[in-house]
Amino acid sequence: MAANTTGEIFKVTTFGLSHGVALGAIVDGCPAGLELSPQDIQDELDKRRPGTSKITTARNEKDQVEILSGIFEGKTDGTPIAAIVRNKDQRSKNYDNLRDNPRAGHGDLCWNQKFGNYNYNGGGRGSGRITIGHTIGGAVSKKLLANYGITTTAHVTQIHNIKNTNKYTLNEIKANITKNNVRCADLEVAKQMEDEILKLKQEGNSTGGIVEIIIDGLPLGLGQPVFDKIDGDLAKALMNIGAVKGVEIGVGFECATLTGRQMNDEIYLDGDMIKTRTNNAGGVLGGMTTGMPLILKIAVKPTPSVSGIQNTVNLKDMQPTQIEIEGRHDPCICPRVTTVAEAACNMTIADHMIRAGFIHPDKI
Amino acid sequence: MAANTTGEIFKVTTFGLSHGVALGAIVDGCPAGLELSPQDIQDELDKRRPGTSKITTARNEKDQVEILSGIFEGKTDGTPIAAIVRNKDQRSKNYDNLRDNPRAGHGDLCWNQKFGNYNYNGGGRGSGRITIGHTIGGAVSKKLLANYGITTTAHVTQIHNIKNTNKYTLNEIKANITKNNVRCADLEVAKQMEDEILKLKQEGNSTGGIVEIIIDGLPLGLGQPVFDKIDGDLAKALMNIGAVKGVEIGVGFECATLTGRQMNDEIYLDGDMIKTRTNNAGGVLGGMTTGMPLILKIAVKPTPSVSGIQNTVNLKDMQPTQIEIEGRHDPCICPRVTTVAEAACNMTIADHMIRAGFIHPDKI
Amino acid sequence: MAANTTGEIFKVTTFGLSHGVALGAIVDGCPAGLELSPQDIQDELDKRRPGTSKITTARNEKDQVEILSGIFEGKTDGTPIAAIVRNKDQRSKNYDNLRDNPRAGHGDLCWNQKFGNYNYNGGGRGSGRITIGHTIGGAVSKKLLANYGITTTAHVTQIHNIKNTNKYTLNEIKANITKNNVRCADLEVAKQMEDEILKLKQEGNSTGGIVEIIIDGLPLGLGQPVFDKIDGDLAKALMNIGAVKGVEIGVGFECATLTGRQMNDEIYLDGDMIKTRTNNAGGVLGGMTTGMPLILKIAVKPTPSVSGIQNTVNLKDMQPTQIEIEGRHDPCICPRVTTVAEAACNMTIADHMIRAGFIHPDKI
Amino acid sequence: MAANTTGEIFKVTTFGLSHGVALGAIVDGCPAGLELSPQDIQDELDKRRPGTSKITTARNEKDQVEILSGIFEGKTDGTPIAAIVRNKDQRSKNYDNLRDNPRAGHGDLCWNQKFGNYNYNGGGRGSGRITIGHTIGGAVSKKLLANYGITTTAHVTQIHNIKNTNKYTLNEIKANITKNNVRCADLEVAKQMEDEILKLKQEGNSTGGIVEIIIDGLPLGLGQPVFDKIDGDLAKALMNIGAVKGVEIGVGFECATLTGRQMNDEIYLDGDMIKTRTNNAGGVLGGMTTGMPLILKIAVKPTPSVSGIQNTVNLKDMQPTQIEIEGRHDPCICPRVTTVAEAACNMTIADHMIRAGFIHPDKI
Repeated sequence: MAANTTGEIFKVTTFGLSHGVALGAIVDGCPAGLELSPQDIQDELDKRRPGTSKITTARNEKDQVEILSGIFEGKTDGTPIAAIVRNKDQRSKNYDNLRDNPRAGHGDLCWNQKFGNYNYNGGGRGSGRITIGHTIGGAVSKKLLANYGITTTAHVTQIHNIKNTNKYTLNEIKANITKNNVRCADLEVAKQMEDEILKLKQEGNSTGGIVEIIIDGLPLGLGQPVFDKIDGDLAKALMNIGAVKGVEIGVGFECATLTGRQMNDEIYLDGDMIKTRTNNAGGVLGGMTTGMPLILKIAVKPTPSVSGIQNTVNLKDMQPTQIEIEGRHDPCICPRVTTVAEAACNMTIADHMIRAGFIHPDKI
Repeated sequence: MAANTTGEIFKVTTFGLSHGVALGAIVDGCPAGLELSPQDIQDELDKRRPGTSKITTARNEKDQVEILSGIFEGKTDGTPIAAIVRNKDQRSKNYDNLRDNPRAGHGDLCWNQKFGNYNYNGGGRGSGRITIGHTIGGAVSKKLLANYGITTTAHVTQIHNIKNTNKYTLNEIKANITKNNVRCADLEVAKQMEDEILKLKQEGNSTGGIVEIIIDGLPLGLGQPVFDKIDGDLAKALMNIGAVKGVEIGVGFECATLTGRQMNDEIYLDGDMIKTRTNNAGGVLGGMTTGMPLILKIAVKPTPSVSGIQNTVNLKDMQPTQIEIEGRHDPCICPRVTTVAEAACNMTIADHMIRAGFIHPDKI
Repeated sequence: MAANTTGEIFKVTTFGLSHGVALGAIVDGCPAGLELSPQDIQDELDKRRPGTSKITTARNEKDQVEILSGIFEGKTDGTPIAAIVRNKDQRSKNYDNLRDNPRAGHGDLCWNQKFGNYNYNGGGRGSGRITIGHTIGGAVSKKLLANYGITTTAHVTQIHNIKNTNKYTLNEIKANITKNNVRCADLEVAKQMEDEILKLKQEGNSTGGIVEIIIDGLPLGLGQPVFDKIDGDLAKALMNIGAVKGVEIGVGFECATLTGRQMNDEIYLDGDMIKTRTNNAGGVLGGMTTGMPLILKIAVKPTPSVSGIQNTVNLKDMQPTQIEIEGRHDPCICPRVTTVAEAACNMTIADHMIRAGFIHPDKI
Repeated sequence: MAANTTGEIFKVTTFGLSHGVALGAIVDGCPAGLELSPQDIQDELDKRRPGTSKITTARNEKDQVEILSGIFEGKTDGTPIAAIVRNKDQRSKNYDNLRDNPRAGHGDLCWNQKFGNYNYNGGGRGSGRITIGHTIGGAVSKKLLANYGITTTAHVTQIHNIKNTNKYTLNEIKANITKNNVRCADLEVAKQMEDEILKLKQEGNSTGGIVEIIIDGLPLGLGQPVFDKIDGDLAKALMNIGAVKGVEIGVGFECATLTGRQMNDEIYLDGDMIKTRTNNAGGVLGGMTTGMPLILKIAVKPTPSVSGIQNTVNLKDMQPTQIEIEGRHDPCICPRVTTVAEAACNMTIADHMIRAGFIHPDKI
């Protein structure tokens, strides 16, 4: 089994391979009555799609979406929304040398062990290209949540050793990340990050980074305590993005060095709203939202596809061998991960909003 | 809804409150034929239970387990294993001043918003005491996994600013953590940690820390790629522990600063086993195990119950007010979190082992 | 796996054996704020419990319930409701001759094949006694649904060849079934049924029957079309009762002989309510409720435990052998099935009411 | 929510409307290594598709399948199998008069209440056309089960008042149903049935019938006792087919009139196989298979779309009104239901085979 469905009520099931006929998603459980157009989905696909700048892979895919069902007279009708994207620019011959020769840093060996085969053409369903499905589900949930004043914003705070430590308001972040290829909130730092990525690209190397996600407009008390905590489900959704190796909320790992008096966020009354003066908790206590912005950080590993000769083991004759990775790859996937991270969070939040009765399950 | 069940096939459902009649768990989906005694569960409860040293809460609970069903002639019989622990030493009067006055750093306000009530007696189901249920589920899964050579070991690597950076083998770690109250692998550092905790306790303060978890003996290819990745499910299980604010796997957040060439773990042949020379990935690629040890770290926040006067808001008259927390609390919960983290991982791994066909769902 | 949980949001997990320590259920997902007392559950257990008349088994169990968690100040608090019943009158020695000798009409052989063991003491978890768990879940859901004006009523319409064809209003049915041991709506027919059961009991034989279930007060449009239709889920819930061999809704199997013009229920306006003049559909169209009463019938097989010598096969030496069933058994379980059928329907309806947004998931 | 997924491990998610762009299904959880071609799916779609004889609707759809993913080098690869069928011959103008005027016997009113809209073009997702999705899922599961010697055969035993009471072997049934349009096991009776259907068609009327399903080759002990019994899950799967109003297993409703001695199937030894001399239980005891053929019957209601003027209520002005149904409809859907019933059973059995460890979840 490959567990291609996420969500309990707002359910997204995805399918498709890097070099197959098409990729797509079925969104089941979106309430009826939501205005939704192909363009709503296309906009998110365009943010994610490759070939838009020098720092992404050269694979040229328009990623044009077709909606097959679920929209009636311009609105969702309560039935499953099916949407697909056909592959156009696959070049499978690039991958012939990888048959039976698993790549370091990729899941090839694991896929092969689990299913008795692995798709050496671009990694099959282990490819980052499958996040087209995530992006479709994310686009629908984003539109749904916008109706309730909830937005999710992901921005790059670190690439290799270049960090953005300058603080911006949420509105500034939302505006600035559209003005640079790295999706960094600081335009100066963005340039340094882009230069760093291009430098590594020229060396046939790659790098990782850190992405921060801010979910704003959440109601108080969202989340299912004990085993489906809101931070538990977000951690899962984010860790499920292929390249993510760490997730933290609020002060995160820094909490280890704090005392209780330092960590606690003081409760106070702001008009008739109960708020906290600080937000070390990152907007979550006891697995439920506090009404403060929910703030997460994820660690994104460097793209494993780097140039140069690699040692590996041939699975057929079980002998050491060497491979050289060709194909077209991103030297740093952080900028594109922002769209996928937003999608992952939006799907999770939409599901929880319905589960907790904040959004009616059938019609809005 | 409160989502008190974890697992898809190996399912654990927990119940009970800090100051209610009893707490417990139903383990459904454990295969028949596993030798299991009350002592197997009691051993884990004893590791977790309070009142065993100066650095835990003074609440004195024996946490005696009673098994109500699921064992036939000394072995599991394939039907649900129900086990309960009765509360004995609750002192609810300690909490009267907290009625309608939510505490900083606790989920009181969130529970109240969600359910229209919150249990001011020891936090109700928001209390750490509910991890008795986790521990029962963990004990059964630990016994099951032991049959397949899989062990999970959690040890404390940091308390406040005191870090254990000395390296030990897994066997040394397993041995050493039983020899000190902090469950640290280094006996010297353990003493410093214990002193630090006692110092903070005397100040009526608390602190956080970091726990590392090592899962050993896993087969290659365990995990469900896409939405139920093994690292995704472990991240969720760990983040679902109340005090955890961050989860990382392998090099974790450090990966942001690495290049692809540094991060990739080289594949090689060791006899007839395919291994990797390093384990930066922490034993997971593409959401599946690589056969190398699975290594996670979690950030544990300081106990929010600290002495001194706190500002808060009274929910009845919606006016600012002040409270002082009494009751008995742990100055640092990291040592006790190790048992719960092991339980969370063991339940998750047991579930995945059955889901992926490594363990037969009905009988071993 | 034994799948001991029912429901998607209103979830009931049951455990326990015929001759074990205790049986019980965890009800997770009941909204907070529902008044609930032990007596609410005890009343349903008393309806179901054996030893109350000559036509039930002589096993004398008080079936006293103890609630372990989930109630705070007289109301549900949103956390799991755990309730148990301890076995008191088990006599396991009655069953020693059944070790390795599966009984006809029972699941002994199937349990043994699936789990590698079967509990020859009263059938273990294959016993009808496990419906104590159903009854606990049913009692909570019954109380919840009563708040929304929904009632479920099961009455016996046939025992062996004695049928009740007289029509009564729902209120008359509700009143009359409490006045006789068979739970038949017609008091005269009830006597004949009781005589028939006693006659078969004296012969050491048993018989089956038919139970009709009427669910009243349902809103229009309840049910999840396609794969979780309300009639699909009710059919499953009822067929899951051990002795049930058939389920029909509305005219049921008679629909085979009707034309479309005969079968269709004409839509008309009654004040400002849309109703249908007939109810051949039994209150369900397209898998959703029509607002008319939902009417089901179930076929209940004769108790397989009858006196006299039976042929079987000894599983140890795989040779033909003979057994004689002792123990205490119901000559006809239809009267007691009514409580379990009501419970099964109430749990299913409660779950659907929350899933469809008619009941808030967290608080009422 | 519309619950468009069936199955726990072998999961089928369907989508699409009667008059939308396309219909289809995602099959997730089929093990890798199964030979599967588009023709395997096309064969089942061809059995189900309309326009193939005088007794089906005149809507002319080729129902050509396109597989989008999940097949690698001629075999399933463990990733989701996505398959679609595009609508070609929709004539939406036939349905304009039905806008706001719900039809008797259809779910129009229920859909409208639930989702705030209903698709008056051919019933939208309430149409029988959506069973294209079931058929795709059924085709994949049929191919999978064939590898394990399991076959499912549905044949028509009654149409209106014409019954087939002649007995045939399973092989004869399999052969004969392909030789007539009604899919009846007796070729003489088939002719009478076909004449009866044509007669009703000429009158603009319709009728119901009964379909028997025989599942052969099942292992002993398949099913999850308590809440996912094999008969419970099959009852649900079959009742979820739009027109089904009753399900029975083995002797079904007749069991009400039997005594325990008559009903019990005697256990005996046939070589080294344990069998029962009769099969009144229909192959299921205690919710698990006995190893005998599993035999079910379903009641299929008459098509509600009949000619002539119907009374209804206009939903916009809430006034009585009249409609006349045009469009193209089946005078009796029993023959086409056989394919859908087989699909429903095959999907359910495939899921249970994997859940119980009879089929490996990842690779065959």
